[in-house]
Amino acid sequence: MSAVTTNPFISLHADDNIAVAARHVPAGTTLEIAGNGLTTNDAIDLGHKVAVIAIAKGQPVKKFGQTIGFASRDIPAGTWVHTHNVVIGELELDYACASDIPPDPAPITGRAFMGYRRPDGRAATRNYVGIISTVNCSASTSKYAAAQFDHELLEQYENIDGIIPLVHKAGCAMQYGGDDHYQLNRVLSGFAKHPNIGAYVIVGLGCETGPGSFLAEKTGLVQLQVPGQQPEELPLILNIQDVGGVRKTVQRTVEVLKELLPEANKVRREPIPVSELILGCECGGSDGNSGVTANPALGIASDLLIANGGTSILAETPEICGGEHTLTRRAATKEVGEKLIERVRWWEEYTAKFGVEINNNPSPGNKKGGLTTIYEKSLGAIAKGGGTALKAVYQYAEPVTEKGFVFMDSPGYDPASVTGMVAGGANVVVFTTGRGSCFGCKPVPSIKVATNTPMYERMVDDMDINAGKVLDGSTVEDVGAEIFEMIVATASGEQTKSEAQGIGDEEFCPWSIGPVL
Amino acid sequence: MSAVTTNPFISLHADDNIAVAARHVPAGTTLEIAGNGLTTNDAIDLGHKVAVIAIAKGQPVKKFGQTIGFASRDIPAGTWVHTHNVVIGELELDYACASDIPPDPAPITGRAFMGYRRPDGRAATRNYVGIISTVNCSASTSKYAAAQFDHELLEQYENIDGIIPLVHKAGCAMQYGGDDHYQLNRVLSGFAKHPNIGAYVIVGLGCETGPGSFLAEKTGLVQLQVPGQQPEELPLILNIQDVGGVRKTVQRTVEVLKELLPEANKVRREPIPVSELILGCECGGSDGNSGVTANPALGIASDLLIANGGTSILAETPEICGGEHTLTRRAATKEVGEKLIERVRWWEEYTAKFGVEINNNPSPGNKKGGLTTIYEKSLGAIAKGGGTALKAVYQYAEPVTEKGFVFMDSPGYDPASVTGMVAGGANVVVFTTGRGSCFGCKPVPSIKVATNTPMYERMVDDMDINAGKVLDGSTVEDVGAEIFEMIVATASGEQTKSEAQGIGDEEFCPWSIGPVL
Ligand SMILES: [Ca+2]
Ligand SMILES: [Ca+2]
Ligand SMILES: [Ca+2]
Ligand SMILES: [Ca+2]
Ligand SMILES: [Ca+2]
Repeated sequence: MSAVTTNPFISLHADDNIAVAARHVPAGTTLEIAGNGLTTNDAIDLGHKVAVIAIAKGQPVKKFGQTIGFASRDIPAGTWVHTHNVVIGELELDYACASDIPPDPAPITGRAFMGYRRPDGRAATRNYVGIISTVNCSASTSKYAAAQFDHELLEQYENIDGIIPLVHKAGCAMQYGGDDHYQLNRVLSGFAKHPNIGAYVIVGLGCETGPGSFLAEKTGLVQLQVPGQQPEELPLILNIQDVGGVRKTVQRTVEVLKELLPEANKVRREPIPVSELILGCECGGSDGNSGVTANPALGIASDLLIANGGTSILAETPEICGGEHTLTRRAATKEVGEKLIERVRWWEEYTAKFGVEINNNPSPGNKKGGLTTIYEKSLGAIAKGGGTALKAVYQYAEPVTEKGFVFMDSPGYDPASVTGMVAGGANVVVFTTGRGSCFGCKPVPSIKVATNTPMYERMVDDMDINAGKVLDGSTVEDVGAEIFEMIVATASGEQTKSEAQGIGDEEFCPWSIGPVL
Repeated sequence: MSAVTTNPFISLHADDNIAVAARHVPAGTTLEIAGNGLTTNDAIDLGHKVAVIAIAKGQPVKKFGQTIGFASRDIPAGTWVHTHNVVIGELELDYACASDIPPDPAPITGRAFMGYRRPDGRAATRNYVGIISTVNCSASTSKYAAAQFDHELLEQYENIDGIIPLVHKAGCAMQYGGDDHYQLNRVLSGFAKHPNIGAYVIVGLGCETGPGSFLAEKTGLVQLQVPGQQPEELPLILNIQDVGGVRKTVQRTVEVLKELLPEANKVRREPIPVSELILGCECGGSDGNSGVTANPALGIASDLLIANGGTSILAETPEICGGEHTLTRRAATKEVGEKLIERVRWWEEYTAKFGVEINNNPSPGNKKGGLTTIYEKSLGAIAKGGGTALKAVYQYAEPVTEKGFVFMDSPGYDPASVTGMVAGGANVVVFTTGRGSCFGCKPVPSIKVATNTPMYERMVDDMDINAGKVLDGSTVEDVGAEIFEMIVATASGEQTKSEAQGIGDEEFCPWSIGPVL
């Protein structure tokens, strides 16, 4: 019997019948998990699972509160749980849409954050002014216009967080009216209409495939009204070719912005129910700890936000491919589940065109690290979204209108994925990282959660929360609650580490599905 | 007989048997073209062609010095030449690789520009310092480091044109070692090794699919040696995750650059043969005049540069698709022609995956505007490369090593196309535009040629040359010579309009073929 100072096992969810070893645990170790005494029957390696109660043959093995497989024999408490005693079983058979809908969490009421209430009712967490570049050909002009407003000039407008030039590499050489064009339109209009953008102007070249006029007409963009001015006095769209070149367009854009700034500055923070927060959940630079510390902790925060009536978006379709059954089963309706399947099929076909296969099957290395089934692996990413029912599935950058847990189709690529969620209306983002990503996403704050303590300490300028403490004895629930509290504080105006450094201009990255012509 | 003040027809090339109407010319107009008296037998509309000498049935119709079709009946001088008397004929039959190789132009010797000679012999036209960002996740860090060097600090280094952060939206979520990864590697290493980059540092995140270590190893990148310092004292690659976050990496990058700047500043312009210029030819925002004024004038300049022993790159594969026969016939060898066909096939297959067809067949509008055959339409773009033999075909961003007229596979999209040519070694770019593109491409100067006078005058802050004067009586040869002289002057250090405005950071746009995962 080895002496144990702190519990070496991590319990990820109250419903789980397994726990994960935070370090190597020898056979015969006695300890207490959730008030139950336990002695290990086998040695359990770091990242591997132990049965915390007896699991009868055929019963589900639960991790993250979700079924990752079924016991292939009786598994006594204290036993190592892995491929030798777990099978995928009926999970493999079909998507079973809406077959296992979790009950809605007990509602929590009365919690508010200090936000900006827009005239049309939307809730904002920041107040930026945007310069929306339709095409790469107007990117320099957009940047130059923003650069005219130095720190001093902006100080006059204490309620404005900054001017963001939303520039990118796309906007032309695509099929006019094709999928890629409409997808870019959704991103650009999503940012223009984002509650965190108090005013905006569109800067284009003029001859691009995706002109400002098409964008504005198809998505209903209009110029912010300024009292005492006719709407046509302040143009919504400035095309370089009409205005007469870069220099004149910069000058004109600056003039328009100078009219808009005093209006955009007229906002005050006020209490707004937490139910109006839309959380974007992302992971990037993942490591072996992601699925054990930061992601399940973010899942707890998601569940708390949803209990408060809010919304949490999971994205990154390639990360869940192969494990989508775990989501379709908890879909609120068959239609929601089928919409997810349709997106997964799209990805399978899309990547097949390039001869690329999306396959999340646990590799030999994954299995050595303790991952038993494809569902368990996918759940490491899915865990960010918590355990409530899946209420809706959205296309990339589509406006998110449902409350609760929702899914948005996106690539796993961090800047592209978060750009889609922000375009969809996310007004706060939590980003978990094991290797250390320094991500920001103006106009929305991005809270960064480290999965391990060494990285947190090495990159403390960039990391907001250390979920690595779960490996040292903190509970996932405690870190989840800490993330939730930081979501509320951040939404209320507290700066994240990435905001303090100004990060988030370069990371605007509309996802293009191609082809570039 | 109408009175004519200036010749209303434009002769595009000395070998042509047609000329193009610069305005509507009534039937019965008498005038002189190249010393020959001519009376029009038909009314010739703006953009349409007149036979300047009799063309016998079966004889080639020549525009831009190239065959665009064959007379389907005898065409007397003064007659309108269009679909009613021209057929594609044998051009349609096969690629006829290397069947019609133009003789090399009479060599012109002794012409030099004032450039920088690098220690390894390469010829530079500018002297920048580069911060090469491997992935979007290090873009902000790269920009912050460059921003630490304000105007004043750089003034100490009078021979340095600036510090360019080469940032982009890619670098991760791609197949490791796949086509897209290698293509990005070619772009990043092409810029690092570009003669116009005097020194560089690579900034990465650390966990990206395309890490700096892979880039440096596969392409042989090394740090600039600084006398008195051991190579390892100045790291080539700075990874944010190793250095400990954004703030520390910015600080370290600035320290390294401060060591490199005095070395990079030790250059002096000296005479270098014009044969060492590599010209990138691009058109963007084209209009009906592009194929009549700016493009053929650039073709003349290309031919002049090639007569001087230099290199001219044509790119933008989708713009020539369907008209590639006009290039395969003038390929210097069968192999060169076949390499071009292989690239065209790639595009046909690539776009077919997306259900997109690349089809340059003249539309009814094109035909109304005077374009008779698909070859004539493609030649409007191909005209930029002049009329000499096609010496080589390159993949996107591949190093250009052949002298003479060469082709590089690229999309038509301006920033992506020029990024590929610059990565391949282009040290001067000429960009023709009808609608008015304000393109710049650091570290290489971009000369912008307007196709028409109204746009030139409206956008005079951005346009370097007005080829629209061809419509008012100047010859294509004169404008071609003017472009050539500006190429030499620009290569020698004279600033272009876009350089004066600092344009060319945002336009760095590595072409990604996808998929983004
Ligand atoms: Ca402010
Ligand atoms: Ca991932
Ligand atoms: Ca991600
Ligand atoms: Ca200087
Ligand atoms: Ca182009």
